[in-house]
Amino acid sequence: MLRLGIIGATGYVGAEIVRLLALRDDMKITTVVSNSFAGQPFSEVYPSFRGIYDEICDGMDIDKVADKADFFITALPHGVSTTVIPRLLEKGKRIIDHSGDFRFRDVKVYEEWYKVTHSSPELVSRAVYGLPELYRDKIKNADLVADPGCYPTCSILGIAPALANKLVSHKNIVISAASGVSGAGRKSDLPYAFCEVDENYKAYGVVNHRHTPEIEQELSLICGEEVIVSFTPHLVPMKRGMLATITLDLTDAEITADEVRKAYLDFYRNEPFVRILPSGQLPQTKLVSGSNYIDIGISVDKRAKKLIIISALDNLGKGSASQAIQALNIMAGFEETRGLLTPGLYL
Amino acid sequence: MLRLGIIGATGYVGAEIVRLLALRDDMKITTVVSNSFAGQPFSEVYPSFRGIYDEICDGMDIDKVADKADFFITALPHGVSTTVIPRLLEKGKRIIDHSGDFRFRDVKVYEEWYKVTHSSPELVSRAVYGLPELYRDKIKNADLVADPGCYPTCSILGIAPALANKLVSHKNIVISAASGVSGAGRKSDLPYAFCEVDENYKAYGVVNHRHTPEIEQELSLICGEEVIVSFTPHLVPMKRGMLATITLDLTDAEITADEVRKAYLDFYRNEPFVRILPSGQLPQTKLVSGSNYIDIGISVDKRAKKLIIISALDNLGKGSASQAIQALNIMAGFEETRGLLTPGLYL
Amino acid sequence: MLRLGIIGATGYVGAEIVRLLALRDDMKITTVVSNSFAGQPFSEVYPSFRGIYDEICDGMDIDKVADKADFFITALPHGVSTTVIPRLLEKGKRIIDHSGDFRFRDVKVYEEWYKVTHSSPELVSRAVYGLPELYRDKIKNADLVADPGCYPTCSILGIAPALANKLVSHKNIVISAASGVSGAGRKSDLPYAFCEVDENYKAYGVVNHRHTPEIEQELSLICGEEVIVSFTPHLVPMKRGMLATITLDLTDAEITADEVRKAYLDFYRNEPFVRILPSGQLPQTKLVSGSNYIDIGISVDKRAKKLIIISALDNLGKGSASQAIQALNIMAGFEETRGLLTPGLYL
Amino acid sequence: MLRLGIIGATGYVGAEIVRLLALRDDMKITTVVSNSFAGQPFSEVYPSFRGIYDEICDGMDIDKVADKADFFITALPHGVSTTVIPRLLEKGKRIIDHSGDFRFRDVKVYEEWYKVTHSSPELVSRAVYGLPELYRDKIKNADLVADPGCYPTCSILGIAPALANKLVSHKNIVISAASGVSGAGRKSDLPYAFCEVDENYKAYGVVNHRHTPEIEQELSLICGEEVIVSFTPHLVPMKRGMLATITLDLTDAEITADEVRKAYLDFYRNEPFVRILPSGQLPQTKLVSGSNYIDIGISVDKRAKKLIIISALDNLGKGSASQAIQALNIMAGFEETRGLLTPGLYL
Repeated sequence: MLRLGIIGATGYVGAEIVRLLALRDDMKITTVVSNSFAGQPFSEVYPSFRGIYDEICDGMDIDKVADKADFFITALPHGVSTTVIPRLLEKGKRIIDHSGDFRFRDVKVYEEWYKVTHSSPELVSRAVYGLPELYRDKIKNADLVADPGCYPTCSILGIAPALANKLVSHKNIVISAASGVSGAGRKSDLPYAFCEVDENYKAYGVVNHRHTPEIEQELSLICGEEVIVSFTPHLVPMKRGMLATITLDLTDAEITADEVRKAYLDFYRNEPFVRILPSGQLPQTKLVSGSNYIDIGISVDKRAKKLIIISALDNLGKGSASQAIQALNIMAGFEETRGLLTPGLYL
Repeated sequence: MLRLGIIGATGYVGAEIVRLLALRDDMKITTVVSNSFAGQPFSEVYPSFRGIYDEICDGMDIDKVADKADFFITALPHGVSTTVIPRLLEKGKRIIDHSGDFRFRDVKVYEEWYKVTHSSPELVSRAVYGLPELYRDKIKNADLVADPGCYPTCSILGIAPALANKLVSHKNIVISAASGVSGAGRKSDLPYAFCEVDENYKAYGVVNHRHTPEIEQELSLICGEEVIVSFTPHLVPMKRGMLATITLDLTDAEITADEVRKAYLDFYRNEPFVRILPSGQLPQTKLVSGSNYIDIGISVDKRAKKLIIISALDNLGKGSASQAIQALNIMAGFEETRGLLTPGLYL
Repeated sequence: MLRLGIIGATGYVGAEIVRLLALRDDMKITTVVSNSFAGQPFSEVYPSFRGIYDEICDGMDIDKVADKADFFITALPHGVSTTVIPRLLEKGKRIIDHSGDFRFRDVKVYEEWYKVTHSSPELVSRAVYGLPELYRDKIKNADLVADPGCYPTCSILGIAPALANKLVSHKNIVISAASGVSGAGRKSDLPYAFCEVDENYKAYGVVNHRHTPEIEQELSLICGEEVIVSFTPHLVPMKRGMLATITLDLTDAEITADEVRKAYLDFYRNEPFVRILPSGQLPQTKLVSGSNYIDIGISVDKRAKKLIIISALDNLGKGSASQAIQALNIMAGFEETRGLLTPGLYL
Repeated sequence: MLRLGIIGATGYVGAEIVRLLALRDDMKITTVVSNSFAGQPFSEVYPSFRGIYDEICDGMDIDKVADKADFFITALPHGVSTTVIPRLLEKGKRIIDHSGDFRFRDVKVYEEWYKVTHSSPELVSRAVYGLPELYRDKIKNADLVADPGCYPTCSILGIAPALANKLVSHKNIVISAASGVSGAGRKSDLPYAFCEVDENYKAYGVVNHRHTPEIEQELSLICGEEVIVSFTPHLVPMKRGMLATITLDLTDAEITADEVRKAYLDFYRNEPFVRILPSGQLPQTKLVSGSNYIDIGISVDKRAKKLIIISALDNLGKGSASQAIQALNIMAGFEETRGLLTPGLYL
């Protein structure tokens, strides 16, 4: 029985992980750690778990909680992860981290975009970027996996096959993406109050969102060129869901959508969670909501010589919590899909 | 391996049943029957099922589909069920029906409220009202189970312990309840269009909603008196969820909420899906959304000498689809809770 | 040109008042007072006002702001109003107050339900309850008007004609009401965060909501008996809107809905903002959203011998901001309906 | 007193026009024409107008209704307008048309994108594209004004200053835009049902949306080059609001956002409804919801050498109904801003 600890368990990502794992019989959540709710039953924080997961939240005493589990998922703000993870690694624990702290190969890029000094730069090279579709083999034996950002997962998986097959230029990549509000975390800030968000749509983080360099890093690695993307995120008045609309310059103006689709189907032929949609179909966030799937739709704009990729996932699913579980399954030697094949919630 | 057919599978209740059963390894959905979508893959109607449940919908040819399964769940409009079910029964099939057709012991009451003539009145006495908390033993061996209505489930379970224990009068029962929009089914009628429903709250079916006599029938059976309730349903701009606010006349003005709570805890002490909330806590629809749980909160209004019961469930969960599966588990001899213990979707 | 000051102008009620008055040519908002945003342009707090109302918010220095206007609307938390209003009255200002501080004739009732000591009890008898339909004449010359609560406005106007005409008993009044989220004010508390509220419906303040004694006070005055109501409010995932479902015991079991409707039409025959709906029609919150109207629908439940009144208004409209302006129009000698006849926002 | 007729008055655009004009004292809506609701009071179709605008809808008998008014606004599906408008013009009426029928200078472009044959091509050159910011003088004396599409208004006004000033290339224009659901009209189609739309975000009309050539036509006229845009619209689960995220190639990589802003401020210096946001501020749909304003935010992505323009309007406001009234004010010689200066509905 795998023993799993979740540190930062009372945020939305943590709660989603508990939801997905609470009934698994091959692993056990042996500690839920929360600064804010230490000493309270988890099911008091999230009463949907009443009678299902009533364990008491532990406080953030790393030495104490470390003994309780062998694997840890950390869902902490960036900058905090770097203070917790080194001690867990020292104790031989294997970790999946949700923050941006260990996603970057180049510490300088991280420090520039996150405006902090990295306190454990020596661990960066030890970390594996936790996108199974690109790094499955490395994840298997990693002891530190950086769970990718939601926008990067949605964008990278949408672009990778086209870029790897040189169907599109690595220049002039434009990503306009949108997220449900849970992407901001469980916050009581006014801008996330119901009356401020409901019936409203807006862009945010224009030109400076921290997921930009993360997308660029992975795309650059795929094509061997330095990629600069134009990335604009938006906030949608819904709880879950993420969709990226990606505009790419076709290298061959005569290529058809079907030919592109073939390249995508081939690239992801062994991937259980990537669904390339048939001709004429487009992703919708609700079709993947609550699931670990990512849906990708392909269109060619012959007039503008552009490839339009629409990719959709659940920001709390393939964009964070369930993708972490996918990595955990891989690390632990379980069937990679275990507990993750459930369909999206149509309603 | 139990073989299950779903007739009327492409409505919201049908889709929810498929969602809950698609990954079960002890039963198999061997036919999904749909008039409107015959010949189309189920995953084209609900693309969230792509790669998960891609079976082709069968047309409504009862003789043909009857052979494909041993158990059937029928999710058809009232009046249609009565034409389909007799033939399935003749063939020895066991059925759970979602319509109002077989919920009433007195055919006249049905005909008066539903404004139709019942075409199979002889089957009425054979049918069992599918509320496990009240009729578990009869469900076990039934071949025709009438899945209760959503409002009745929410109301009856909220009132039963108080009425059975004579803590409240059987007179003057006032139920004000509210439902998410999926309760109306998958309809393209204008009143259910997004722009008509969003940011709007209204009462409907005032004084004449068909769930009224269903509630009255069961409450009358519990207390042995003829119960007449005042029932007013409302429509809430959300997809799922149902909440009933029930105002009852206390027989003993001095009784405390804690004493009432004890009676409720005792009444439901063996029930896996009924959660009586502790003092000071109130149900919320999202805490049971996507689940088979019903949450019940208890308050006493000493000044007005009223017992205020708030009960919440998911109209597509304990209010229809998952309650049908609970009945199916019982009928088939499975563990009653199998596949149904998942928590509500907090987000 | 009437000079109006708004104290507590940056809450939702304040912002709605500015919206309704910004373009009036017979009055001028000469000061918007805000503790939190003093020194900032109002249109920075609510950027929808950019170019329309860009005045700088004043700080809460009563002596200073008092000079700037002759009329004041105070939209402050209860307990705070009592500290501000005496000084404004001393200076000869006329005031409409939104808090509960001056709504009660009996200071003890206020203190019991609001759990505070009233700091200006001597002013209570000077205050007029600002419901024009009941107190128009007194409002005209008042210097202190207590703008009624939203639930009380919705409930009292829904019940008054039936009670005044003795069509219903003054006992056993059950009010189940629901409000949009803006009723809670502009708050950054977690329970009002989008992800917590969206797709959720719940009761709150069961048995102890502070609007209960306010409703009871006015109903008691209408019928000359001590009225105790059972009042249960709910929170609806929408921004604006309020609807009360009121269940009353008919004194004459044979009375028809049409007869009751006649009594209502007669009671409100000169009221420009009360709309009694024709037979078979029911109120919806969106039909009054953004307006000063209240819609009232009448149904008779012959079986249960109940009168079911459904009343709907906008909690920011007739439930607070525009009702205050209606009172202001009356006090200032303007046409009562000026600026308030606009229809609800269907979309 | 100007006499105005609205043909196709019971759609959402028609209802919004009635809302904006019902209380005007300088014009009168003398006929509301509706095929579906002829003979019914307008306030039965939209009960928010009860007591405010109760006129009976006229049937679609053009000869009959033509006599009733001097100006007409037609809100009809494309292809239908062409059958109605010639007869109105013959009778000397002046018309503002909401459809796409008269927006194109080149009939072939219209016919190619709308897949119909234009039945009145001779009128095309007589029509003026009703964007006051570009064609104010021509609108003044026009007898046929084509009210621009919502996406084109939002896109063209966002791009015009940059393109006219050659700050950006006319090539490689990428527009990712999103609309509230009312943009689809008052439809009872399943894809617009509440349960299908709510909590969902999707792209639609990818590569083939009919507003594409309309945007291209106007941009080409501005820069004197043939412009091809990549345009991708999205559907947001909200009723009103539109936002375009426009990515443009800067011609001068060293230009700052402030320099661009100056050009925009200058371009629109006399425009009452275009608000160029200060540095660091971004548009939100709710800040213009219910109003005739368009908000434009400017960002420069130095790394990617892109200008990012975010523009927001209300699809029922500046995107259709109130823009038509702006044109009507101009045509009729009224103050252009009359009745249109109200702020957006923050809530």
